[in-house]
Amino acid sequence: MKELNRYTRIINEEIAGLEYPETAPCLYEPVKYVLSLGGKRIRPVLALMSGEMFGASTEEVLPAAVALEVFHNFTLLHDDLMDKAEIRRGKPVVHRVWNENAAILSGDAMMILAYREISRMPDRCMKEILSVFTEMALEICEGQQYDMEFEKTPEVAETAYLEMIRLKTAVLLAAALKMGAITAGTSSENTERISRFGENIGLAFQLKDDWLDVYGDPTVFGKNIGGDILNNKKTYLLIKALELAEGAEKRELLSWLEAASPDPERKIKAVTSVYDRLGVGNRCEAAMENYYKNALKELDAVSVSLDRKEPLRLLAARLLNRNI
Amino acid sequence: MKELNRYTRIINEEIAGLEYPETAPCLYEPVKYVLSLGGKRIRPVLALMSGEMFGASTEEVLPAAVALEVFHNFTLLHDDLMDKAEIRRGKPVVHRVWNENAAILSGDAMMILAYREISRMPDRCMKEILSVFTEMALEICEGQQYDMEFEKTPEVAETAYLEMIRLKTAVLLAAALKMGAITAGTSSENTERISRFGENIGLAFQLKDDWLDVYGDPTVFGKNIGGDILNNKKTYLLIKALELAEGAEKRELLSWLEAASPDPERKIKAVTSVYDRLGVGNRCEAAMENYYKNALKELDAVSVSLDRKEPLRLLAARLLNRNI
Repeated sequence: MKELNRYTRIINEEIAGLEYPETAPCLYEPVKYVLSLGGKRIRPVLALMSGEMFGASTEEVLPAAVALEVFHNFTLLHDDLMDKAEIRRGKPVVHRVWNENAAILSGDAMMILAYREISRMPDRCMKEILSVFTEMALEICEGQQYDMEFEKTPEVAETAYLEMIRLKTAVLLAAALKMGAITAGTSSENTERISRFGENIGLAFQLKDDWLDVYGDPTVFGKNIGGDILNNKKTYLLIKALELAEGAEKRELLSWLEAASPDPERKIKAVTSVYDRLGVGNRCEAAMENYYKNALKELDAVSVSLDRKEPLRLLAARLLNRNI
Repeated sequence: MKELNRYTRIINEEIAGLEYPETAPCLYEPVKYVLSLGGKRIRPVLALMSGEMFGASTEEVLPAAVALEVFHNFTLLHDDLMDKAEIRRGKPVVHRVWNENAAILSGDAMMILAYREISRMPDRCMKEILSVFTEMALEICEGQQYDMEFEKTPEVAETAYLEMIRLKTAVLLAAALKMGAITAGTSSENTERISRFGENIGLAFQLKDDWLDVYGDPTVFGKNIGGDILNNKKTYLLIKALELAEGAEKRELLSWLEAASPDPERKIKAVTSVYDRLGVGNRCEAAMENYYKNALKELDAVSVSLDRKEPLRLLAARLLNRNI
């Protein structure tokens, strides 16, 4: 997919060329470190693709695209600190390489740098872009708040979980597409549709992540299978299993969740077997499918020519590992 | 000073009336807590006074003024966490009332809420206000970075210390005045002058804070005298004393700095006596005086009628506890 490669290259060049104030260089070292770890740059690519689809130039959308990627990486930096994570993209996290204070303060600077990019957007759409970005940013914090609360909640409702992943993941994809559309100045109907396309893709994408942890091919997935199971992570599968299990099955599931230091392989096998019996993997796939269909419906209804929609359709398919 | 009271009331009403998203209410509880603790609201008052001096209405400047106060309180929240402080404005800090993660995440949300206020500024000055605010916010982070580095540096140079307090304190006062001026649309010369007035007042204000810790009247100052001495805090007085002391005096000063658990009263008395002998209190007052004079020179050179400058002149005098 040549558009994807072209856009990723542009984003990576722009990020590598970001200018940092010369005052207090130590403040910006963790920022450069985090941004140099790579990643798929999905969010800025979505912004550029949406902009191009609706007729904006790459140059016009680029500051917003970079703002989205910098902001996304800021959330990873602070989330990793709050979650006491050790590794991100195969490298030690900032609070390990430096310390917790560096993670807090450089994270703060990183969020401000994201806004600095927003301040470079064209005057005509500045206010709207700033509002959309700010509303999205608050929602991401709300998603992280829910996520942390859920870790202490024994049983989380499916609807609450879906709202959490909407806030924590989907709204950022939606905002990326929306900001591209706003920069291009398309109709508000198109703007809303492409935003909902992003939200649905985001939800499907997160459910897929949950599914892959259990049913993924480890040689393709790039992470060890069963990590979420070992950490009792409240994924869609676990939440659904806790809701559906009864009697002996529920007791078995709970005993694995409460086990003090279980044998990892046995735990993964046993919990996966409960998931299989309850059919939660299939339910997860069905929910994913549904969001994917809704996303495509929104894209279909966007009023631009079919060929202009092709890059986003292909990217969505690729994100969800589909052959179309 | 009736302008001050009027502006403070307007700011407090606006802050009390801030609207928070209804999603994830727990995220916003620490924000409301911090903003309810009061404070002098100097920064937003400066923005409103500058705006009025140059002909902007209070209503126009108000979102920027609120943004400045919310941002200032965000920096206190994250700084208190990084500094492991316990008390702020006589109340336990957020990471004690809640926990460290709440302090990180609610702080992040608070910074975004500050930007939400910026997004409410008039279109005509949005881009410039956003740039000034963002540049200031980065400088504040740089100041905190220096401050943390200095705590681990045995001897800090006077110029480095002055640059640190410029970044950590003065640029926020300067930005407040600048944002009022930009909103009013005055000349760039006036804008720069009123900004430098704020920077100089900010530097004088911080030096005064250092001075008061040693030479203040505890019944007026509201804090215990000698707190900075007990914490080996790198104030202007200590930095200057380390620079000037020689031989036995230097050894005496260092021995108090290195003492494992000294008697507090004896330490305060002994270090104060070293300060007296070296005359660092007087030097601090002289530096303060100099910044204050520079500030007034800038205000004098602002091209608006004398009576319009009166509120800012009075506020500066009051901040530095002067009778004029």
